[in-house]
Amino acid sequence: MGEQIPALDSDFLKKGHEVYLRHVSVDGVIFGFHENELKVLLLKWKNNGPWCLPGGFVRREESLQKAATRILHERTGLHDIFLQQFHTFGEPDREKKKTQINSNMAGSWLMERFVTVGYYALVEYSKVKPAPDMLSDECRWWDIQSVPALVYDHNDILNHALAALRQSLNDHPIGYSLLPEKFTMPELQRLYETILGRPIDRRNFQKKMLGLDILVRLKERKTGGAHKAPYLYRFDKRKYDRALKEGWGLGFV
Amino acid sequence: MGEQIPALDSDFLKKGHEVYLRHVSVDGVIFGFHENELKVLLLKWKNNGPWCLPGGFVRREESLQKAATRILHERTGLHDIFLQQFHTFGEPDREKKKTQINSNMAGSWLMERFVTVGYYALVEYSKVKPAPDMLSDECRWWDIQSVPALVYDHNDILNHALAALRQSLNDHPIGYSLLPEKFTMPELQRLYETILGRPIDRRNFQKKMLGLDILVRLKERKTGGAHKAPYLYRFDKRKYDRALKEGWGLGFV
Repeated sequence: MGEQIPALDSDFLKKGHEVYLRHVSVDGVIFGFHENELKVLLLKWKNNGPWCLPGGFVRREESLQKAATRILHERTGLHDIFLQQFHTFGEPDREKKKTQINSNMAGSWLMERFVTVGYYALVEYSKVKPAPDMLSDECRWWDIQSVPALVYDHNDILNHALAALRQSLNDHPIGYSLLPEKFTMPELQRLYETILGRPIDRRNFQKKMLGLDILVRLKERKTGGAHKAPYLYRFDKRKYDRALKEGWGLGFV
Repeated sequence: MGEQIPALDSDFLKKGHEVYLRHVSVDGVIFGFHENELKVLLLKWKNNGPWCLPGGFVRREESLQKAATRILHERTGLHDIFLQQFHTFGEPDREKKKTQINSNMAGSWLMERFVTVGYYALVEYSKVKPAPDMLSDECRWWDIQSVPALVYDHNDILNHALAALRQSLNDHPIGYSLLPEKFTMPELQRLYETILGRPIDRRNFQKKMLGLDILVRLKERKTGGAHKAPYLYRFDKRKYDRALKEGWGLGFV
């Protein structure tokens, strides 16, 4: 796809700061769930450069949220991604290995320090059409277990996003739009285990989930397996949405 | 204190961007707890300008966290404030009523758009020595219930910080360093009620708190009241610290 990607031209390098804010970027951690694996979308810089998170700059008239939405739409083809801002990264040496890709970069606004605002999203894997940007020539999913060394502090950003996603799992429901409409308790458990990256005790999990009062057990059972057919569940969308908004925790908020 | 505050001089207005990052600021929401009231520290701009949150700029060689720590040290006199970054505010019109305080400001980097990184802290009220900055001539505590209209989007930032503090209350312990070493259950409840801004059922609160297993009931009782002397408690610091780190929620994290 290299031909279709706009070149990193001298106009962008010399005058980009007239269009974009200096010192401010956004980076996105796009998680997908596929075949019981948690995936993350990464780009590979041109000229066999390092892998990185999808990211970009903020237009002078654009909100952070809109910039993140625009950039991640360009990389995934998705509209209406639910983005969650999780942290802003502002160490002065976070880009300490910043190198000039070409000589036009000397003195460019791009070579200055950037503070980056991190957003994460959990998207439907099958709907994503990965597309590289002007700095990269590859864009694809990686298993969360086998992510390579990324540029700058992008491994830190990814780990921070994963911690935020896990924290949200602790306090909020998950699964709607990631699981089929009807699902079994083992399928729901596998989603949690994938995101947490570790096994959960089956009885304990079932007890917690039923205690949350967001599941409806259906009369029909899953068929086709060798074992006793497991019950099917669906989410009670009204209770699910309320829990998504309020969290559970101690129930004070 | 007006004489001691450096003037907003033309050097800072014209050349400040050589020392500080353009387009990036930090704002702090400093909460204090005093006489069963939640307070917030605000500054008043000079020339009878509006009230605002304490904030400032990020030096070119400084991390966001260090900038926030430096700025809030200058306003409170406190060292080692535990600051929690909670959100970055990046609407393009968030400073839409930005006005020139004096003619030196025309064309200054200060008049450009700023994205601001919000930090909150809960501090020991009695230890704070409020001090205005170069743009303000007053700095003092306000009851959270009676905060005036603030400049720009600062009321939004404050409300966002309050929501983040309440959310953290839902999932993490609070009280250590805010309460005396030994305290009663009603004193702990009053702290929660103050932050949540509403009453909590006494039995429900006591049940939840004891269920968290972070309190140690002492043999001695509080004396001096007219009623039956209530039990005294202290925090089990090891369990408290673990809960602070891990939260409770579903206990997955």
